[in-house]
Amino acid sequence: MEEVKLHGNCFSPFSCRVTWALKLKGIPFENIEEDLSNKSPLLLQYNPVNKQIPVLVHVGKPICESMIILEYIEETWPQNPLLPTDPFERVVARFWIKFAEEMGPTMWMMFRTSGEEQEKFKKESLEMLKTIEEMALGVGDHEKKFFGGDQISLVDLAFGAHAHWLLEVIEKVVGVKLLEDHKFPRLHAWIQNFKQVPVINQNLPDSDQMVLTFKRNRERLLASS
Amino acid sequence: MEEVKLHGNCFSPFSCRVTWALKLKGIPFENIEEDLSNKSPLLLQYNPVNKQIPVLVHVGKPICESMIILEYIEETWPQNPLLPTDPFERVVARFWIKFAEEMGPTMWMMFRTSGEEQEKFKKESLEMLKTIEEMALGVGDHEKKFFGGDQISLVDLAFGAHAHWLLEVIEKVVGVKLLEDHKFPRLHAWIQNFKQVPVINQNLPDSDQMVLTFKRNRERLLASS
Repeated sequence: MEEVKLHGNCFSPFSCRVTWALKLKGIPFENIEEDLSNKSPLLLQYNPVNKQIPVLVHVGKPICESMIILEYIEETWPQNPLLPTDPFERVVARFWIKFAEEMGPTMWMMFRTSGEEQEKFKKESLEMLKTIEEMALGVGDHEKKFFGGDQISLVDLAFGAHAHWLLEVIEKVVGVKLLEDHKFPRLHAWIQNFKQVPVINQNLPDSDQMVLTFKRNRERLLASS
Repeated sequence: MEEVKLHGNCFSPFSCRVTWALKLKGIPFENIEEDLSNKSPLLLQYNPVNKQIPVLVHVGKPICESMIILEYIEETWPQNPLLPTDPFERVVARFWIKFAEEMGPTMWMMFRTSGEEQEKFKKESLEMLKTIEEMALGVGDHEKKFFGGDQISLVDLAFGAHAHWLLEVIEKVVGVKLLEDHKFPRLHAWIQNFKQVPVINQNLPDSDQMVLTFKRNRERLLASS
């Protein structure tokens, strides 16, 4: 019996990436909800460097950092593959995963700032979204359902962590609508395709509660800065 | 006949990572030196998103981003392995590679700043170096020759790109000595071990020329800011 435990938090996009991957693979696991303002001693022992969720514990060994956990899941449970087998296609997938990882912090800065500074991050974020629209989700007339083609992959899980949280939080909490539909038809279609996958759909935090939580966080952040 | 070409620049740490990996594997390749102020049309065609070196071209297909190239090299040419085969040890290697990737930009900021702002980045960098000293290069009495143990691995290549450039550039160009030997005995020993590996030793840019180049870059940067 393989023991799989996930130390996570249901509002964290990074935590959800791991839940999605495990469920897409059909791996049973125990979910351990961490209180982020009072993390468990076990979590701090498992991730002494970053002290962050998510941490996956497999047969007693901890694995940290959401995208590293996803690569581990893919290597350990090969069923329902989430990365292509062709080495060159794997490279392309990893390129966009890295892009997603770098895009996240830029977009989050819109949430932490206001005024002129926020405008700068908005501009940078729009550039990045344009790159995804034009270069990752199809070129010319070609359109793709998911980043890798017809099947959901780790690239979708990487971007999915931004799609639900960032775009919705930024629109409803910060008041900036980034994804005007006519400018980003492919991204718009991708978000719909992504959220229609049952495992994703059934494992997203409640939108209203999420917006409320982030609204409170932003007020606290702006008041203290 | 497999055709392997590397679009790089001999002063770039990211480019050297790829040269080291190819030479450690014994893969013959053609080196195409790029002028970074006048990049070749081929490079821009191969890496339209970031327009950066290094780009590895294998049987006509381009691979971008130094650490993604290194993972590709490891998957494509399994001889002289540069990642452990044990899945959990792979996770640990990838964790420190990610750490190296995140440490780089913080340390480079010391090069781009001065005064109080520089002091902030120095403090952050020292925290990161302390984490490596205490948690990546051995715990308690245990000391390791390389990050993974007795053999050089992708983790060493990831950190090596910072060791030669950053520490030397920051000491000689910026005038900040980060690695006081008595505080960082393991890191100090690791740098010596790393530079003694023949492939590394024979493929490092000339130190004086490097310092001169970066000195000029820093003067330009500070003058324009």
